[in-house]
Amino acid sequence: MTETRTQNVTIAAIAAEAGVSVPTVSRVLNGRSDVAPHTRERVEQLLRHHGYRRRGGRPTTSARLIDLVFNDLDSPWAVEIIRGVEGAAHAEGVGTVVTAIHRRASDTRSWLDNLAGRASDGAILVSSQLDPALGAELQRLHVPAVMIDPAGVPALDVPTIGATNWSGGLSATEHLIGLGHRRIGVVAGTPTLLCSRPRLDGHRAALESAGLTLDPELVVVGDFSHESGFQAATTMLALEDRPTAIVAANDQMAFGVYEAARRRGLRVPEELSVVGFDDLPGAEWSSPPLTTVHQPLSEMGALGARTVLRLVRGEALDVPRLELATRLVVRESTAPPSR
Amino acid sequence: MTETRTQNVTIAAIAAEAGVSVPTVSRVLNGRSDVAPHTRERVEQLLRHHGYRRRGGRPTTSARLIDLVFNDLDSPWAVEIIRGVEGAAHAEGVGTVVTAIHRRASDTRSWLDNLAGRASDGAILVSSQLDPALGAELQRLHVPAVMIDPAGVPALDVPTIGATNWSGGLSATEHLIGLGHRRIGVVAGTPTLLCSRPRLDGHRAALESAGLTLDPELVVVGDFSHESGFQAATTMLALEDRPTAIVAANDQMAFGVYEAARRRGLRVPEELSVVGFDDLPGAEWSSPPLTTVHQPLSEMGALGARTVLRLVRGEALDVPRLELATRLVVRESTAPPSR
Repeated sequence: MTETRTQNVTIAAIAAEAGVSVPTVSRVLNGRSDVAPHTRERVEQLLRHHGYRRRGGRPTTSARLIDLVFNDLDSPWAVEIIRGVEGAAHAEGVGTVVTAIHRRASDTRSWLDNLAGRASDGAILVSSQLDPALGAELQRLHVPAVMIDPAGVPALDVPTIGATNWSGGLSATEHLIGLGHRRIGVVAGTPTLLCSRPRLDGHRAALESAGLTLDPELVVVGDFSHESGFQAATTMLALEDRPTAIVAANDQMAFGVYEAARRRGLRVPEELSVVGFDDLPGAEWSSPPLTTVHQPLSEMGALGARTVLRLVRGEALDVPRLELATRLVVRESTAPPSR
Repeated sequence: MTETRTQNVTIAAIAAEAGVSVPTVSRVLNGRSDVAPHTRERVEQLLRHHGYRRRGGRPTTSARLIDLVFNDLDSPWAVEIIRGVEGAAHAEGVGTVVTAIHRRASDTRSWLDNLAGRASDGAILVSSQLDPALGAELQRLHVPAVMIDPAGVPALDVPTIGATNWSGGLSATEHLIGLGHRRIGVVAGTPTLLCSRPRLDGHRAALESAGLTLDPELVVVGDFSHESGFQAATTMLALEDRPTAIVAANDQMAFGVYEAARRRGLRVPEELSVVGFDDLPGAEWSSPPLTTVHQPLSEMGALGARTVLRLVRGEALDVPRLELATRLVVRESTAPPSR
């Protein structure tokens, strides 16, 4: 891909500037170990400074890259993770390659090929199910992997970084109970994703601690989409004894609840309280601003980057499974019930 | 960074499997041109397949990377661009390195160093002002650059990809006039950014075509933040002869207008129509769903990637300045005026 570039510096010029012989520069270029470290460093610095490229376009020093892999890049959620990973990697002089594999085997295959081609140092997989074949492939390529918000429980030798989903679910419902709500509906997340169950269990635990029981009519399973939140709330708000509050397993479904309330002529929070989960930027910008459980997505990304870079350096991890704390952010979508 | 990895395949094994001599494999590894193309391809394939790495961790084939550079990764806006760039680059087997430089010289410097180190093939700069020093540096590194949504007008030799901001501004206001609005407020964007002026001029053109004039009281300059949209609308809605509709130069400011209306007890769209600009995913999920000007951000990203890859291959561009069409998406935040 470099045919059209002119080579404006020669190995001889680099050698002259570094005060070393031409073969020494060649040895550095060829990755030979028989060069004194400070000489190598000086030569590499000059090669970089002059933008020297070998024919074929291969870089002259380590790639210093990590790969960040999403299923899809279709949500504001992703940019939070990217910001965290990029910031922590950049601080260590490492670049972040972002890829979406769309849950397709062909995209996963081409990603793995490219990963090997560019000699990425590590991989961070987001919200994915690390199947054994992919894990074996990464091991064969000597690319350590870390998972953020894993979709399932991976093999024990893959570190994971998540959030305290159970505590988050608990705090959302405790907040509503504290305001006086007794009929609390819940829009649960996709049951096959690991984060969904603890959020629902936290909700149930809060109800039971307050002597309330989970009414099956008030549990509707969504799929994290706006539409599913809208449908679930439309169903629950049509009940004779409708809920006075609804908690949703993510912000997007909570906004679907807003829209279902608006269509029914119910004001938030006066006639319906709503709580979300994630605290994406849109939560603060919604009208009314959404009370939601903050998930520290960018911190999870930053920790993911630091963790994979530790693995790249061969350092041991203290804890292979980490959950960062969630916290409830109270804004204006919750109030005491009006009846 | 690879000290801890074991080398589980030797050059000899690769040579045996490829049916070539060991020196031939070495020649491929060293980027020499005296290897038949199909032999090189077979050897490179095997090197990739076995995850072969040379000491020092340098990749054995071209990096096949482009760099995508943002000022900040703080908005859902960014993920739309990333999705477009990543999709188009991935389709050509090229990885996308995402970086935020925070408008800081030090971050720009370290980005340039890393860019040279990993031998990226091209760069896409988003919403930035390409200063001459940065342009010269990229040229010295032989890295072609393309700008998406440029903050200013760059030198003529840098291709740019934008959106039809003027037409977008025009269509938003024409829509409101068509509904019967005469008192239309506008929250303009940051005056120093190239996209802001044409949006405002389009608004003015629509008014003038309808025989209306721009009332200076109904033009408030914002900075694309939610807060600035909220403040601007709060000011305009307090006027004795308040506007019946407000257009904002982006969605985020439009959501600020929603919140100002809610605080004042005005319903959207019954008592105030609102139009945004961008059509980020949040526009569809807002309540009511926002009427807004769709900016084809992911298509702009995809075109940016294809353009920079053409430059990398040394192909000529037909047009160095491109604007993709915006279009008005009518949802539920606009209605005829009630008075």
